[in-house]
Amino acid sequence: MTTQEIADQLVKMCSNSQFIEAGDKLYSPDIVSVETGAPPGQSREAKGIEAVPAKGKWWVDTHEVHSTVVAGPLVAGPCFAVTFKMDATHKPSARRFRMDEVAVYTVADGKIVREEFFYSV
Amino acid sequence: MTTQEIADQLVKMCSNSQFIEAGDKLYSPDIVSVETGAPPGQSREAKGIEAVPAKGKWWVDTHEVHSTVVAGPLVAGPCFAVTFKMDATHKPSARRFRMDEVAVYTVADGKIVREEFFYSV
Repeated sequence: MTTQEIADQLVKMCSNSQFIEAGDKLYSPDIVSVETGAPPGQSREAKGIEAVPAKGKWWVDTHEVHSTVVAGPLVAGPCFAVTFKMDATHKPSARRFRMDEVAVYTVADGKIVREEFFYSV
Repeated sequence: MTTQEIADQLVKMCSNSQFIEAGDKLYSPDIVSVETGAPPGQSREAKGIEAVPAKGKWWVDTHEVHSTVVAGPLVAGPCFAVTFKMDATHKPSARRFRMDEVAVYTVADGKIVREEFFYSV
């Protein structure tokens, strides 16, 4: 798949809250995922096809997502950007919040090899 | 200015090849600029209102830009993404090339405090 095709797939799947399935389909085994800030007890950067989906699963397990709006993609060379605007509740604390972020993905050999998220910390 | 207003200004000025002027108007004194790869003899990261415009000036002085297409912005919270697609010639080598990149900007107190570029290295 081209970068544009991968970007379109990611937007479509994430718009349907298929975050885990998008990773299964589109991530390289060598995926690197970088956060703006480190999640509690974790580092900013996760590496590999076990660690990165585990982070996604932690998010899905600990949050109830009320809505997700995905905008984009903007594609340039092997990279593309999208935005996520989420309305979610952190289940352990019952705290409801909005999460707005820019995500940039890098593609190599038809798979996403890097993702980086930008948001307020 | 809001993040959306700053993003719209940046897109407008860069579409008119006003790269230096956009920095003068929109950068914070504490601007941090991060490249995917280090330019020759420089580091990946430049900091401050002297170092970052100097990098822009180096680019403008050493390249003839034939065309620039700027797409976006995608705005989320304090961050926004745009893409640049440039057709340019590196003056010292007379080599003409295309440069496609995603840029992500972070805004605080009405100024751009961080920019990061994503492209093929």
